[in-house]
Amino acid sequence: MRDHFELRDGDAAGRIGELTVPRAGVTVETPALMPVINPNIRTVAPARLRSEFGAEILITNSYIINSNEDLRERALDVGLHELLDFDGAIVTDSGSFQLAEYGDIDVTTREILQFQHDIGSDVGTPVDIPTPPDVPREQAERELATTEEALADAEDVDTGEMLVNAPVQGSTYPDLREEAGRHADGTELDVFPVGAVVPLMNSYRYADMIDVVAGAKRGLGRDAPVHLFGAGHPMMFALAVAAGCDLFDSAAYAIYARDDRYMTVRGTEHLEDIEYFPCSCAVCSAHGPDELREFDDEERERLLAEHNLHVSFAEIRRIKQAIRSGNLLELVESRARSHPAMLDGYRALLDHADQLEREDPVSKGSFFYLSNESARRPEVRRHHERVGRIDADSRVLLTQGGKPSGDAFDAVWRVVPPFGPFPRALSETYPLTAEVPERTDREACEAAAEGVARVAAANPDSSFVLAHDGWPDSALERVPEGVEIETVGSDERE
Amino acid sequence: MRDHFELRDGDAAGRIGELTVPRAGVTVETPALMPVINPNIRTVAPARLRSEFGAEILITNSYIINSNEDLRERALDVGLHELLDFDGAIVTDSGSFQLAEYGDIDVTTREILQFQHDIGSDVGTPVDIPTPPDVPREQAERELATTEEALADAEDVDTGEMLVNAPVQGSTYPDLREEAGRHADGTELDVFPVGAVVPLMNSYRYADMIDVVAGAKRGLGRDAPVHLFGAGHPMMFALAVAAGCDLFDSAAYAIYARDDRYMTVRGTEHLEDIEYFPCSCAVCSAHGPDELREFDDEERERLLAEHNLHVSFAEIRRIKQAIRSGNLLELVESRARSHPAMLDGYRALLDHADQLEREDPVSKGSFFYLSNESARRPEVRRHHERVGRIDADSRVLLTQGGKPSGDAFDAVWRVVPPFGPFPRALSETYPLTAEVPERTDREACEAAAEGVARVAAANPDSSFVLAHDGWPDSALERVPEGVEIETVGSDERE
Repeated sequence: MRDHFELRDGDAAGRIGELTVPRAGVTVETPALMPVINPNIRTVAPARLRSEFGAEILITNSYIINSNEDLRERALDVGLHELLDFDGAIVTDSGSFQLAEYGDIDVTTREILQFQHDIGSDVGTPVDIPTPPDVPREQAERELATTEEALADAEDVDTGEMLVNAPVQGSTYPDLREEAGRHADGTELDVFPVGAVVPLMNSYRYADMIDVVAGAKRGLGRDAPVHLFGAGHPMMFALAVAAGCDLFDSAAYAIYARDDRYMTVRGTEHLEDIEYFPCSCAVCSAHGPDELREFDDEERERLLAEHNLHVSFAEIRRIKQAIRSGNLLELVESRARSHPAMLDGYRALLDHADQLEREDPVSKGSFFYLSNESARRPEVRRHHERVGRIDADSRVLLTQGGKPSGDAFDAVWRVVPPFGPFPRALSETYPLTAEVPERTDREACEAAAEGVARVAAANPDSSFVLAHDGWPDSALERVPEGVEIETVGSDERE
Repeated sequence: MRDHFELRDGDAAGRIGELTVPRAGVTVETPALMPVINPNIRTVAPARLRSEFGAEILITNSYIINSNEDLRERALDVGLHELLDFDGAIVTDSGSFQLAEYGDIDVTTREILQFQHDIGSDVGTPVDIPTPPDVPREQAERELATTEEALADAEDVDTGEMLVNAPVQGSTYPDLREEAGRHADGTELDVFPVGAVVPLMNSYRYADMIDVVAGAKRGLGRDAPVHLFGAGHPMMFALAVAAGCDLFDSAAYAIYARDDRYMTVRGTEHLEDIEYFPCSCAVCSAHGPDELREFDDEERERLLAEHNLHVSFAEIRRIKQAIRSGNLLELVESRARSHPAMLDGYRALLDHADQLEREDPVSKGSFFYLSNESARRPEVRRHHERVGRIDADSRVLLTQGGKPSGDAFDAVWRVVPPFGPFPRALSETYPLTAEVPERTDREACEAAAEGVARVAAANPDSSFVLAHDGWPDSALERVPEGVEIETVGSDERE
C-alpha cells in the first residue's frame, strides 16, 4: 500500500480515499475536484474556492508561470501558495498540454520538475506526450516510450517531499494503457493521471473513455490514486468514479462561464436558451436567467462560474455519499440517462463487470434494479459465481412464487430476476435484499435463467423444477435441458 | 377553452400553463408547487416562501381554521391573506382529508365553501370522499356518487370570483377515474384535483398512480388544470407532469424536516445517514451534515425545510425548462432511475404512449435515446404511424449503412433504430434528428423492425431490401416475409 493514499470505502471500482500531500501538510479526501487556476486570470479567487466551495486542492500550470518573467520571479520569490493565496494542496502541470497543442516546448522534465519544486508545488508533473486518440499503433508505442523515459527522468530529480505525477498514456489502445499503467505503477512516482482523454470527452466518446480508463486501471495497482486529466464536466464524474478515477480537474467551470455556458449534471446549456434555472444553488435561487443576462460581462461570468462550481462540487459530494451508501451504480444509472453517449459509457462500463467485481464490496446498501442494464451489474455476476458453488439437495424447487403446500421437494429456493435462484436462508443477504420493479424485463429474466444454469451445472446429480412467473422464451431458452419448467401457480397446487 | 387556464407550451402530456386566479389578482405559472401552510405552525414564513423560493401559490386548510375559534375569528376579521401574510394565490382544502382520516367531519360542502369564500380564499374545495386504493368497486362507485353530489352542491354556492376545485375520485379503477374526470369536466368548477393518491405514493405504487392519473386525464378535457393532490416529493414531479399534472402541494417539505428527513430528486435520506450533502443549495453549501446535526431542533428543522423547498422548487424549474427545451421525457428517463418503483411508473406511463402522443408536440428539441424504454416513447409510435402513410417507390433499399454505389434501387431510405426506415428527405425533421447510442439494443432494433413492417404493409406493390447492422433474431423475426434481408456491408458492394 502506498503510504500517501489510503482507501476508506468503495463501491464498484469507485472509492473514497485519503491522499496525503506532505509538502502542503494536508490530506485531500477523494474523489476530489481540482479547480484549474490560470495564473493570469482569477474568475473566482482561490481563497474563496476553499472557504465557500470546499476545494482542498487545485491545479495550475507551471509552464505558464515559468514562461512569464514577472510570474516566474514572484513564484520563486514568495512561493506558489502565497502567489495564489491558497493554503490547500497545489498541483502543477508541466506544459505537456502546450506540447500537444503547439508541437514543441522549451523545457525538459528535469528542468520543469526542478522549477515546480522551487516554486513550492505540492504535486509536480513531468513532460509526458499526450498521444491523441486513434493514432497508428506505432506512434502510440513510440510516444509511450518517450513518456516512460520522462518518468525515469522524473525519478532522478530530487523533489524532496513534493509528490510527482506519473501520467499514463497509450492513445485508444487499452492494452497499451494497461502496459503504461503497469509501468507507471512500478516507478517511485505517486499520482497517476490518465492522459489525453480530453479529445474523447469533447467528442462524447464516453465508451472509448471507459475502455481507456479500464485499461489503465488493470495495469495500475488498486492503491494507485488516479487522476482523469482534463475531466471537468459533472455529467461524467459518477461514471468515471465508478470506473476507478479519484481526481478530476475543472478548467471548464471558468471557460464555460466566459462563454455563457451553464453546466448541469445532465449536460451543458447556453444561457440564452434558459428560461428557468434548473438548479437549487445560491446563484440560481437568487437570480432568474433574464436577470443574469442583464449583468455586465464580468459579473455574469463570475456568477456563472460560481454556479458551475456549485454544481460540480455538489456532484462530488453526491458521489461520495453514494459510495458511503453503497449505491454509486444507482447514481450512474441516473447519469447514464443524460445523453446517449453517456448510456454508451455505462454500457461500456458493464462490459468490464468482472473487473469491477474484483473491487466491489461484498455487502453494500440495497441493490436497486433500475434498467435492463442493471442485469449486467457486477453484483449479479458475483451472485451467479457464488450460487454456482452451493451444494443443492437432490430434488429442488426453484420458484418465483410461494412455498408449495406439498413436500415433494427436499428444498425450495427462491428465484428473483435478475439474480435467479438462491436458498431461502440467503434472502436477507446482499444483494438478494434487492428492490426490483414489479414490471420486470427480458434481461432480468435472462440473467435469472443464467443463474438457474449455474446452479444446475454445479449440481449434476440433483433434479430441479423451475416455477417462473411469465418469463419470455429468450429466458426459458437459457434454462438447461434437464430442468423441468412450470409457471408459478402450477407449483402452488402441488 | 377555460378562460382561466391557458396552455403555453407542451411536451408529452406535460405542459406549461397559466392559471389566472381572479380573486387574488395573480396569474400562476404551472407546473407549480403549492407549499402547504399549517395555520398553527409556520416552519418557513409564507412571505419568505414568496420572496426567497418564488412560491406564487400556497394551500392551507379551511377546516382547521374553522375548527379553531381564535383562527376562525381572525380569518373572518382580517382575511386569509393578512392572516398568513401572503399576497399570492391561496387555495383552501375543505377537511376531506380529516374526513378520510377520522371518518366524520361536522361541515357540509355548502357550509365550508361559504366559509372559504368568507375568509378570502382564492380557490375553494368542496367536501369530497377520498376513496382509498383497492376498495371493492361498489364502494368506489358509491363514494364517487357522493363526491359528484358535493360538486353539484358546490356549483350551487355563490362563491363570487373564487375558483372552486372539482376533485376526481374513483379509487384504483381507471375507468371510474375517467368517468369521474368526465363528470367533473362537465361541471362549472375550475380546478381538478386527482384525489386519494397519497396511499399509492406512500407505498411506492407509482405505476398504479400513473394509471389513475391517465384515467382521470382521459375524462378531463385537455384544458383542465390538474392538481395531483398530496403529491409533494420532487422525485416524482417530472413523471407526474409528463402524465399531465399541473399542480402539486407539499406538506412534506415541513413534515420531513421535523423528522430530520432530507429530500432529493432521487429519494429521501435521513439526516443521520448523510455524511456529504448531495446538493448545491445555500443550506448544503454553507453547512456540512455534522454541523447541521448540532443545531438546536428548531433551527435544524427550519434549515432542513429550506433545503427541501430549494430541491422541490429547483425540480419544478428544471421541469419547466425541460418542457421548453422539448426534453421532458429525457428528464423522466433520468428520474425513473431513482427507485425500481419509479421505473415501474415510467414503464406504466409508456403503456399510455398513444394517449401521450395525442398531446405531444409534432416537433421538439432533439430526441435522445436513453434506455430500452425509449423505444416505446410516443415519438417512435408517431413516426411509425406517419411512415406508414408514405408512398414508396417500387424497389427500395432500407439501409443502416451508406448509399450503395450501384443504382439497382429506385430509392434508398435510411434506417435508424428505434425509428426504422424513412426517406432521406426526412432526415432533418423531428424526431429523426435523434441522438442514439452507438451500442444499440434489442428493443431499438425491434422497434425499427416494426417500422419496416409498417412501410411494407403500406406499400404492398413495392419490393424492399433491408440492410441491417447486426440486428438480433428477435428484431429480424418482426420483418415481414416479403422483405429481403441483408447486412450492411453486403449492400455497399453492389
